[in-house]
Amino acid sequence: MSNSGPEIEQLIQLLARLPGLGPRSARRAVLHLIKKKDQLMIPLSAALDRAVAAVVICEVCGNVDTRSPCGICSDPRRAESGLLIVVEDVADLWALERAGVGAVRYHVLGGVLSPLDGVGPEDLSLDALVSRAPQFSEVVLAVNATVEGQTTAHYITDRLAGTGVKVSRLAHGVPVGGELDYLDEGTLSQALKARTAL
Amino acid sequence: MSNSGPEIEQLIQLLARLPGLGPRSARRAVLHLIKKKDQLMIPLSAALDRAVAAVVICEVCGNVDTRSPCGICSDPRRAESGLLIVVEDVADLWALERAGVGAVRYHVLGGVLSPLDGVGPEDLSLDALVSRAPQFSEVVLAVNATVEGQTTAHYITDRLAGTGVKVSRLAHGVPVGGELDYLDEGTLSQALKARTAL
Repeated sequence: MSNSGPEIEQLIQLLARLPGLGPRSARRAVLHLIKKKDQLMIPLSAALDRAVAAVVICEVCGNVDTRSPCGICSDPRRAESGLLIVVEDVADLWALERAGVGAVRYHVLGGVLSPLDGVGPEDLSLDALVSRAPQFSEVVLAVNATVEGQTTAHYITDRLAGTGVKVSRLAHGVPVGGELDYLDEGTLSQALKARTAL
Repeated sequence: MSNSGPEIEQLIQLLARLPGLGPRSARRAVLHLIKKKDQLMIPLSAALDRAVAAVVICEVCGNVDTRSPCGICSDPRRAESGLLIVVEDVADLWALERAGVGAVRYHVLGGVLSPLDGVGPEDLSLDALVSRAPQFSEVVLAVNATVEGQTTAHYITDRLAGTGVKVSRLAHGVPVGGELDYLDEGTLSQALKARTAL
């Protein structure tokens, strides 16, 4: 665009690459930033600088933190439950932490097996998982309930079979607060099979 | 959150204040930034620093640029058409520039009259508009077709009546590529009234 400087144009282009923002919303975001220069733009710039300097990937579990091993891996109380929860992505780890699942530890795979996208076992953090698993009493596979997620779960179960560690997966069923009418047949039949006594 | 450092948490909170991003999408954006640290996070941080240092508001028209008067106000070719387009916001100016409306100049009001929100004439860039207007042959009111926009248009027309400058507004009608079936009655009746001969 000719009507704003290259600094503004470049900021729009970079913001447009964030998930959830396109070119139009990136422009709106940049205008909002410029309008709130002191309250938002300068603090955001400083926060980004600090985060760039501080962020590291935990060498044990793959979590994102400002130290490695991360806060979860270095918290001794989290070893007591003996539960290791395997997730696809750091976002899933954060979601489980927000849900308050308790004093557990995590292992971030960094994706799922997907031959179509060229993602094989060597692209995921699987060797590290197999070597960590014997330290725990149970490995819970909290991968997404997609075809790729379930394929990955089967593969991990096979890989862990030799270690003797108990392997489980998250329950399928009716979401809390969900209405039966809106659920797919697969979920409903799984929920009926796994019904619990009252 | 306990599972990520304060630097990450603060970055999420600041990004969540951008229009179009909420807490959940801000978390996704931050994870995306961390994953693409070299390709996206560090360039974004540098671009924000540069924009913070460079951005100024044009003292003539209210546009956002890296110099004041802005590129539009200091371009002599834009004086020739004699058209001054009045917009509510810099985003509207950018939209008109993208549409390639030609070599015109702009005046950014900084909002619309809205007694309910406590926005009166003194909150908008109206005195500057009245003093600029006589330099132009025509003032085009390109305010939004909302109640507040139209109220503001009437107010500006009254204010400019003494200057002798011709005042016009954007045409109402069927959007190019739009389907009649999806248009409201107000637009349709305006489009019929303002029909043009073929």
